Amino acid sequence: MGEVKHLCLVKFKEEVLVDDILQGMTKLVSEMDMVKSFEWGKDVLNQEMLTQGFTHVFSLTFASSEDLTSYMSHERHQEFAGTFMAAIDKVVVVDFPIIVAKPAPPAAPAAA
Amino acid sequence: MGEVKHLCLVKFKEEVLVDDILQGMTKLVSEMDMVKSFEWGKDVLNQEMLTQGFTHVFSLTFASSEDLTSYMSHERHQEFAGTFMAAIDKVVVVDFPIIVAKPAPPAAPAAA
Repeated sequence: MGEVKHLCLVKFKEEVLVDDILQGMTKLVSEMDMVKSFEWGKDVLNQEMLTQGFTHVFSLTFASSEDLTSYMSHERHQEFAGTFMAAIDKVVVVDFPIIVAKPAPPAAPAAA
Repeated sequence: MGEVKHLCLVKFKEEVLVDDILQGMTKLVSEMDMVKSFEWGKDVLNQEMLTQGFTHVFSLTFASSEDLTSYMSHERHQEFAGTFMAAIDKVVVVDFPIIVAKPAPPAAPAAA
């Protein structure tokens, strides 16, 4: 099946220190070997009609669905999930095998 | 600012032929040079409480926010957006500069 993504769209509660959550998440995934990579971002266009109020995206990539399952059921993830869920106003989570319909072009070769 | 993602979470209308939409989208982005890469996926865990009914993710990557703007305002994108919006029950769209908090490990070196 190949790589799998665990994607969360989040609207945080107003009083939450988002930087603290981000630091906690970055620390967690850096220490969890089954997480292949982790990207996040904050919406910049602020078009409420399109974002539905969601402001942050968290995208975890796993080499396999087994690694995703291993992460989701890990004690440390579940601990963090409690902190995370307490900090959010709303969330959407989707988990999906990645279909690369247009691959990124190869990086430019090193100068000769 | 670096790479920017345009991410859509979608729930299609029941009667829609999703494959047709996917083919149209793949053709569009393959012909639009300012789209650096395009991935999509379909949720596999089907946890309604987490997905809120969203089933598909579309993720377009651009080398810069200028490329994203150029894509969004392009006549061919706007044509397709009309078809797309008519096919969906609901959508969330976020646009964000990508923060790589945990990079993927380098690919294994070729055998010596």
